[in-house]
Amino acid sequence: MTTARKYVLESQFQGEPKRSDVKIVEEKLPPLNDGEILAEAVWLSVDPYMRPYMRRFKAGDTMIGTQVAKVIESKNEKFAVGDYVVGAFGWRTKTISNGEKLSKLDRSMYTDKKLSSALGVLGMPGATAYFGFLELCTPKAGETLVVSTAAGAVGSIVGQIAKIKGCRVVGFAGSDEKVGYIKGLGFDEAYNYKTITSLKETLQKACPKGIDMFFDNVGGDFYDTVLPLMNEFGRVSICGCISQYNLEKPEQGARLSGTILFKQLKIEGFIVHRWLARWPEAFKEMNGWIEKDQLKYNETVTEGFDNMFDAFAGLFTGKNLGKAVVKA
Amino acid sequence: MTTARKYVLESQFQGEPKRSDVKIVEEKLPPLNDGEILAEAVWLSVDPYMRPYMRRFKAGDTMIGTQVAKVIESKNEKFAVGDYVVGAFGWRTKTISNGEKLSKLDRSMYTDKKLSSALGVLGMPGATAYFGFLELCTPKAGETLVVSTAAGAVGSIVGQIAKIKGCRVVGFAGSDEKVGYIKGLGFDEAYNYKTITSLKETLQKACPKGIDMFFDNVGGDFYDTVLPLMNEFGRVSICGCISQYNLEKPEQGARLSGTILFKQLKIEGFIVHRWLARWPEAFKEMNGWIEKDQLKYNETVTEGFDNMFDAFAGLFTGKNLGKAVVKA
Repeated sequence: MTTARKYVLESQFQGEPKRSDVKIVEEKLPPLNDGEILAEAVWLSVDPYMRPYMRRFKAGDTMIGTQVAKVIESKNEKFAVGDYVVGAFGWRTKTISNGEKLSKLDRSMYTDKKLSSALGVLGMPGATAYFGFLELCTPKAGETLVVSTAAGAVGSIVGQIAKIKGCRVVGFAGSDEKVGYIKGLGFDEAYNYKTITSLKETLQKACPKGIDMFFDNVGGDFYDTVLPLMNEFGRVSICGCISQYNLEKPEQGARLSGTILFKQLKIEGFIVHRWLARWPEAFKEMNGWIEKDQLKYNETVTEGFDNMFDAFAGLFTGKNLGKAVVKA
Repeated sequence: MTTARKYVLESQFQGEPKRSDVKIVEEKLPPLNDGEILAEAVWLSVDPYMRPYMRRFKAGDTMIGTQVAKVIESKNEKFAVGDYVVGAFGWRTKTISNGEKLSKLDRSMYTDKKLSSALGVLGMPGATAYFGFLELCTPKAGETLVVSTAAGAVGSIVGQIAKIKGCRVVGFAGSDEKVGYIKGLGFDEAYNYKTITSLKETLQKACPKGIDMFFDNVGGDFYDTVLPLMNEFGRVSICGCISQYNLEKPEQGARLSGTILFKQLKIEGFIVHRWLARWPEAFKEMNGWIEKDQLKYNETVTEGFDNMFDAFAGLFTGKNLGKAVVKA
């Protein structure tokens, strides 16, 4: 009999997630039935969406999330021992799966060195950047993009795709190190939002022709400041609103109907699974850009399943550069 | 020599427009040059957009607006004496024009009885309803629409087009008379927003399957209340935000990024002139609906150029049922 370890919710998050809100428990796994596999976590993902989504769960429920896992036993002919899969198994070390909704990694793309990219640039966050930007911002060469959390798993990819498409890219991140990183990626302008004195004046200076596209991961004051600076027919892709996830009660902000109306803005929120059937086309194109060195990515690796919560909490204090992943 | 009368801004509107903010002045008009016409106002339009747009003007400037005018002198071969034109002449009794940007009314559609409809259902407000709803809300039969200012020039047409498209239509207006009017137009549900005790509960009851489309003319609390009740992939067409036009300083409201994100909403503001080249197709189709009695419209007529300001101010106190027009 095999034992898995998993994180369960001890109590609902209030404000910033605390280590005591979750606990690790053991689970005895039964022998496999026909059609099942046993998979062992190799890389685990922590993502900002987990914070708001966990509101739907209760104490005792397993923390949700995706992982790259290695098949270590198989009674399913579609999966062989040694295969690598991506599955929404949650925060756990070992998982029995019937193989449904699993994607087996093509090792010609996801080589040993790039296994964890299946949780990042060639995984959900990469698809988020690709479709959320290209489909909703519909960039044209010469247009100006503003992207928040620009050094993160999604923002850093969005900005580079925009550069590939010939746009002017202005990014905001939360440390000088991150600013240096995204400048190195080719962003035209990059700012540490924590040290600028006026976001509005910074944007006006950085975007002399106004803002045509806004890819937003933060919401809040940042959103309220960008919208009035947008050009007519500007497009806003709302990918996240991390500034709001840990609030105890909803904030008030600017009323923006008039801005949206008179500037004829289009604002759209999205969850990347709406394009699930098309993810492979994104990964293929992005992998091509990676191979040609047009697209770079970084991963912030936390070692050890026992440290997974710290990696998660770090998302809200800005510790990650690029994608945050956990090496089991 | 001819004398025109016109309304000029005496001082910028502060809060609700006051009669003393404008004054009527006389203007001597010179003889016509070649290529010019002299047109006399027959029907003048007052519209909510005039309130925010006049912010761009200064004391002494003529009040902006559109009118149906009769050509009374012509040195332009495209226009004959007796023709009727629609022109953005402003609030004035007589105007010299070089004929540019004028549309000559086709009297087979705009009969004597329907001349004023060129300022309403078969004019800018009608095109606003037609394109703003069909293009941005992309209705499907069986879906639920909420429309604010539902007894107004635009809202009353939007609701009827939605019924023609097979949708469930829930309208809000500001008096019991208006509620009766829109129920008579075939709206499924209609409410007096001034007398309901809870907008949220009213919406929940009226929209048991949630809200798929929201055509908004008011903004403010109404907008903040509707958005969280929308279904996934809901569409919001922002046509106006009349609740905000007379505010002395901007209001705060709900932060809605999270709602837009997790419900994957699309919100778009528009000004109807983006579809200007296609207005004739809207008028043709809507005139067909009118002739078949599928589309009804009402006009609230104010008699006399001297009373034009009252018609305008009445827009903000809810005096008009359908389109507000002034008979010169």
